Amino acid sequence: MTLCDIGNTSYHFLKGDLEYKKEVASFDPASIEEDVYYISVNAVVDTKLSDLSYWHDLRSTIPWGDYYETMGVDRIMACEAIEEGLVIDAGSAITVDLVTDGRFEGGFIYPGLEAMQETYRNISSRLNYSLNFELDLDKMPKNSRDAISYGILRTLYSEVMRHNKQIYLTGGNAKALSQIFPEAIVDELLLFKGMKKMMEKRC
Amino acid sequence: MTLCDIGNTSYHFLKGDLEYKKEVASFDPASIEEDVYYISVNAVVDTKLSDLSYWHDLRSTIPWGDYYETMGVDRIMACEAIEEGLVIDAGSAITVDLVTDGRFEGGFIYPGLEAMQETYRNISSRLNYSLNFELDLDKMPKNSRDAISYGILRTLYSEVMRHNKQIYLTGGNAKALSQIFPEAIVDELLLFKGMKKMMEKRC
Repeated sequence: MTLCDIGNTSYHFLKGDLEYKKEVASFDPASIEEDVYYISVNAVVDTKLSDLSYWHDLRSTIPWGDYYETMGVDRIMACEAIEEGLVIDAGSAITVDLVTDGRFEGGFIYPGLEAMQETYRNISSRLNYSLNFELDLDKMPKNSRDAISYGILRTLYSEVMRHNKQIYLTGGNAKALSQIFPEAIVDELLLFKGMKKMMEKRC
Repeated sequence: MTLCDIGNTSYHFLKGDLEYKKEVASFDPASIEEDVYYISVNAVVDTKLSDLSYWHDLRSTIPWGDYYETMGVDRIMACEAIEEGLVIDAGSAITVDLVTDGRFEGGFIYPGLEAMQETYRNISSRLNYSLNFELDLDKMPKNSRDAISYGILRTLYSEVMRHNKQIYLTGGNAKALSQIFPEAIVDELLLFKGMKKMMEKRC
C-alpha cells in the first residue's frame, strides 16, 4: 500500500517502510500505476488527482463533526495518530493541536521558522539574524540575535509548555524544534500513522 | 522644551503638553528653530539631523553599560521611564523589556501585529484573517480565524504573563493590545518620560 501526504511544495510518500519525497513542481502523479491513498492541502494538485483512478482521497474518511470545516487535513491526520498529547507539525506553518482521550480539543497556527525570520528581516534590516536554538530560555536576552530567537521560540514554548502534555513533533522542522522541546517524541511518519488508523476504521 | 522620538515612519513630538506627529517622508527638520531633544532609530534621519544645531541627540546620555550595544534607543528610554515592570512597545515590532529595581534585565522582540498578519497571508491565502482580539485565551481554538489570532496573541500573552509583573503598554498598537492585557497601564508618553528623566540625570 502506498500513502501520500501532499503539501504546498512536495508529495511525501510512504510505501511499506520506504519513505521519499517528490517536488510538486516536477512530479507527474499520472506516472503512478498502483493505488495511492492520499491527503492534500494543495488545491492545484487536488484538481489534477480528481481524474486519476489510482489516487484515492482520504478526505472523505474524516469524521468532520470531530474537527472544523476549514481545518487542514494534515492536522487532522496527525491528531488521529495519537490518543493524548500535543501535536506540533512544523513546516511552512507550525500547527499545534491538542488531543485529549482521543478527542481533538482545538489548536492554533504559528508561522513557520523561516517565515518568522523573514518577518523580522522585512521589519528592519537590523533584525536580520539566524535563529539561536541554544539560547537560554530562562533568561531574558541582552543581545539582538537572542532577542529575536527568544521572540520566535520562547513565546511558542511558553504557550506549548503550559498545557503540560506529551509533545509529538513532526514536519520538516521537527528536529530543529526538538532542541527546545527535548522531551518531545519526534516522529516524521506521524501523519501516515493517522492515515493508516483512519483507513482501518473507516475504509 | 520640545522632545522628539523618531521612528521609521514618523517624528513624534511632545512640546509641553502638546503631542503631535509628522511624517518622516514629508517633514523638514530644518524648519524648526528652537531646541529639540530627540532619540532616533532612523539612520536616514540621523544623517540629516547631525548638521542641525537645534537638534540634540540624547543617545549620548545613555548609560550603555546598563544596556547592550545594538539595543534600540527607544526601548532604552521606555525602560528608563519605569522602576519596575514589563514594558511592551507595540509598533512595527513589539519589544518586551523587563525592568527590576530600576535595572534593565533583558528583553525580546516579537513582530508587530500587522507584520504577523502579513506573515500568515504570505504562507497561504487560506490564512488571511483579521485579528480577533475578543477570542477566548483560555480555550484552544476550533476555527481558522481564532487559530491564527491565538497563534499571534496567546503565545505572546503566555510568555508575558509568566513574568508576573506590572505591564506598561506604549506605541501605536498599545490600545489594541490592552484588550488582551486589561490590567496593563497604557501610556503613549512613556518614552518621553524616560527622555525627561534621562535629561534630568545626565544633562
